[in-house]
Amino acid sequence: MTATPVCVLGLGLIGGSLLRAAANAGRTVFGYNRSIDGVQAATADGFDASADIDATLVRAAETGALIVVAVPMPALPTMLTHVAEIAPDNPLTDVISVKSAVLDGVREAGLLDRYVGGHPMAGTAFSGWAAGTGRLFIDAPWVVSVDDHVDPHVWSQVMHLALDCGSFVVPARSDEHDAAAAAISHLPHLTAEAMAIIASDVPLAFALAAGSFRDGTRVAATAPDLVRAMCETNGPELLPLLDRTIELLTETRRALADGGSVAELVEAGHAARTRYDSFTRPNTVGIVIGEEDWRDTLAASGRGGWVIRSALPGPDSR
Amino acid sequence: MTATPVCVLGLGLIGGSLLRAAANAGRTVFGYNRSIDGVQAATADGFDASADIDATLVRAAETGALIVVAVPMPALPTMLTHVAEIAPDNPLTDVISVKSAVLDGVREAGLLDRYVGGHPMAGTAFSGWAAGTGRLFIDAPWVVSVDDHVDPHVWSQVMHLALDCGSFVVPARSDEHDAAAAAISHLPHLTAEAMAIIASDVPLAFALAAGSFRDGTRVAATAPDLVRAMCETNGPELLPLLDRTIELLTETRRALADGGSVAELVEAGHAARTRYDSFTRPNTVGIVIGEEDWRDTLAASGRGGWVIRSALPGPDSR
Repeated sequence: MTATPVCVLGLGLIGGSLLRAAANAGRTVFGYNRSIDGVQAATADGFDASADIDATLVRAAETGALIVVAVPMPALPTMLTHVAEIAPDNPLTDVISVKSAVLDGVREAGLLDRYVGGHPMAGTAFSGWAAGTGRLFIDAPWVVSVDDHVDPHVWSQVMHLALDCGSFVVPARSDEHDAAAAAISHLPHLTAEAMAIIASDVPLAFALAAGSFRDGTRVAATAPDLVRAMCETNGPELLPLLDRTIELLTETRRALADGGSVAELVEAGHAARTRYDSFTRPNTVGIVIGEEDWRDTLAASGRGGWVIRSALPGPDSR
Repeated sequence: MTATPVCVLGLGLIGGSLLRAAANAGRTVFGYNRSIDGVQAATADGFDASADIDATLVRAAETGALIVVAVPMPALPTMLTHVAEIAPDNPLTDVISVKSAVLDGVREAGLLDRYVGGHPMAGTAFSGWAAGTGRLFIDAPWVVSVDDHVDPHVWSQVMHLALDCGSFVVPARSDEHDAAAAAISHLPHLTAEAMAIIASDVPLAFALAAGSFRDGTRVAATAPDLVRAMCETNGPELLPLLDRTIELLTETRRALADGGSVAELVEAGHAARTRYDSFTRPNTVGIVIGEEDWRDTLAASGRGGWVIRSALPGPDSR
């Protein structure tokens, strides 16, 4: 299979890192960024970038490029309108953190047939082209959605892009991804914000803060707009987890006040973290993309912890 | 001033690291550990350790050593009884995480006159002699208590030990230390336990977990007994912070459910974390240990972020 060209829309931390990583892997890759500053920075670093969305999408249409939407959630509808006008038949993916919301937007734009959602679970507290690195995705999980509609050809293309960037692929349904992302990312962002606020109100706290506080509140340094976009777009999955957090802390508060013990929370938390530490990710084998029930089979494998580290065979490899 | 010998009681992660760090700094240092395994490991590594508490304390009494209590909180009363019997006149400090509780125990044992509390803000998720390192305390805050009773000679000795281990000294009252420790350590331990529990209940969550989850729940890997000892001993300071956390998350839950926004928490959290990142620790100057109002002056300086990186002049340097 000849590698499909890649067209990255948005050259911030994630899009800019993707442009570098795909180029490092030998892929033909070009990008668009709204701000001319980002384009100039990328060009100065030797990459192929433009501030002209129409010209970029014409080029994508002419070359059959895999289009990767890497803009913040609020900019998604406008971007999808451009894609629908100029490159409606191109394979399409994205790297945005809430998959159900993107799926809805893609459906409204009439682009569902050629869309396979994606989400590399990588990032830093910084943003913009300059914060990016071609090594950002190495050994990171990259979710590739296996919703009922997804096309096996496009799925293969997105899988290859993730593998080329050094990630391993976790196949998942969009709704299951969003519930998991709420648990491991969106909720921890909110509790980190709360920890930072509380410490800032206690005299001497910052003076004593050491590694555990720095690590535990690291994500509170993320730009507020990004945190809001993730959490506010994923409300349906986040609300029940917030309720569960409040419930656990309320029970613990009562146990500490009444019996002087936090044993229940601490034992359960330690056991859960120990399970996480021993969680392994064996390689998926024996699944052929496009064969009967391939989407359900992949979704079940992802749920069980199986991941894709080398390309599965599929419609273009047979 | 000739450096005082150091006697470390308890050779776990903190005590064992302290034994190494003090030895590396050229101090005469010897230790006691209850389990013979720890003693053998320390001896095999070339350090001076014994499983005989009476002999160790007789040696401390004969050499005028600074005694450092480094046992877990539940073992404190028994250890202090031994000290009161054999070495009641030695200078005494500790490295236990809740200062008011230790202060109470020391008072009950009749050892208050020669006691100055200490707490190096350093650690890992591991425990035992083998987990220790002589570099554990480098560039870490080490609280040295400035409660009303503290003796300037003993205070100087504890300050010198902390500096010899590579730490900087934060002077603080025991109650203020405990409130700050609740904010930057004990409360974040409990929320990390909750995050680990919640993620373990969501299918796919561990499969997607990446750096931010690993960092954010790192402290949930700490041995449950240690977390319980810290939190349960510090209930009076921890309870109001648990209430505040529940309040912040409840307000956020309501704002997300009703208005689709988490702006208030996220903006405030980001601002707080930004203040932490720009928090500097200038060097304390111009204070002489033992001069009039030296305890209050040091407490005020610690509250303001001033720290001691090179020894302040004191009663033994004049």
